[in-house]
Amino acid sequence: MGVFLLIKFFEYNWKVRDEWFDWCAQVATEELIKERRGGVGSILYTFFHIIDVEYSWIRGIQKKEDVTFQFEDYNSLRKVKPLSDELRNEIAKFLQSNLDGLKGKVISVSWDEEKYTVDEILHHIIAHEIHHIGQLSVWSRELGLQPVSASFIGKGIHTY
Amino acid sequence: MGVFLLIKFFEYNWKVRDEWFDWCAQVATEELIKERRGGVGSILYTFFHIIDVEYSWIRGIQKKEDVTFQFEDYNSLRKVKPLSDELRNEIAKFLQSNLDGLKGKVISVSWDEEKYTVDEILHHIIAHEIHHIGQLSVWSRELGLQPVSASFIGKGIHTY
Repeated sequence: MGVFLLIKFFEYNWKVRDEWFDWCAQVATEELIKERRGGVGSILYTFFHIIDVEYSWIRGIQKKEDVTFQFEDYNSLRKVKPLSDELRNEIAKFLQSNLDGLKGKVISVSWDEEKYTVDEILHHIIAHEIHHIGQLSVWSRELGLQPVSASFIGKGIHTY
Repeated sequence: MGVFLLIKFFEYNWKVRDEWFDWCAQVATEELIKERRGGVGSILYTFFHIIDVEYSWIRGIQKKEDVTFQFEDYNSLRKVKPLSDELRNEIAKFLQSNLDGLKGKVISVSWDEEKYTVDEILHHIIAHEIHHIGQLSVWSRELGLQPVSASFIGKGIHTY
């Protein structure tokens, strides 16, 4: 019941991410992969990083081995969007079915020596994406473009 | 029980905000109030805006009249930090004592014609601050400074 509430933030993040993918359609690929100041470097790499981090932690919660993706394989909108869609479907199914039983469980992952609760990890994934999307909003203005709205209210978040 | 879980995000936001206030100590006031591209304009105005929006929505949930603050009264670190501290103490007490009874309640506020659930509003406040802090992280690099870590993991979030 408690952890389930966090799903709304995943839905929010996924909706905002898709609106940013739509936003990207008006921008040349060179601009999307251009190295920028701050954040993780480029607009497209930001999406790749968000997707990669979300999936890694979710697999960690599932006690599955980490899957490593290479940005070279996803360095265009046409390539990174299907990755986002595919992993999201898998994650959504998992979150819907297994979340409540996991509350309070302690998790070890291959890339970190510390142990974390599932609860902490879910908070981490959520804040991670919102933070990076905030960076995109500044870069958007650098390009002279209006950023996607980040407002939770009005985003029409329903259960997935 | 459910809504209570969201408190961890408030604690996270408040901790990150305080770390940014510490970060500000190394930056000249002119840089803090300098108009920047994207976001709400300047570093200090971002804090003011985050604090103002959080407090307005929380008062909305409490069915209290909105309080309007003027940035001219809080346009230095020395002025905005005490405002943050003061309102946070009030908000923390409220969230600790009243949150669970509010779940699902529908709220009207003076600045918006729509009605929202308390749940939606709390999600909105949380995402709002994380988003704007993401913008600060880009501006921080423009100043040649390392931004505050946004990682939820390792931030040591305990119950308030």
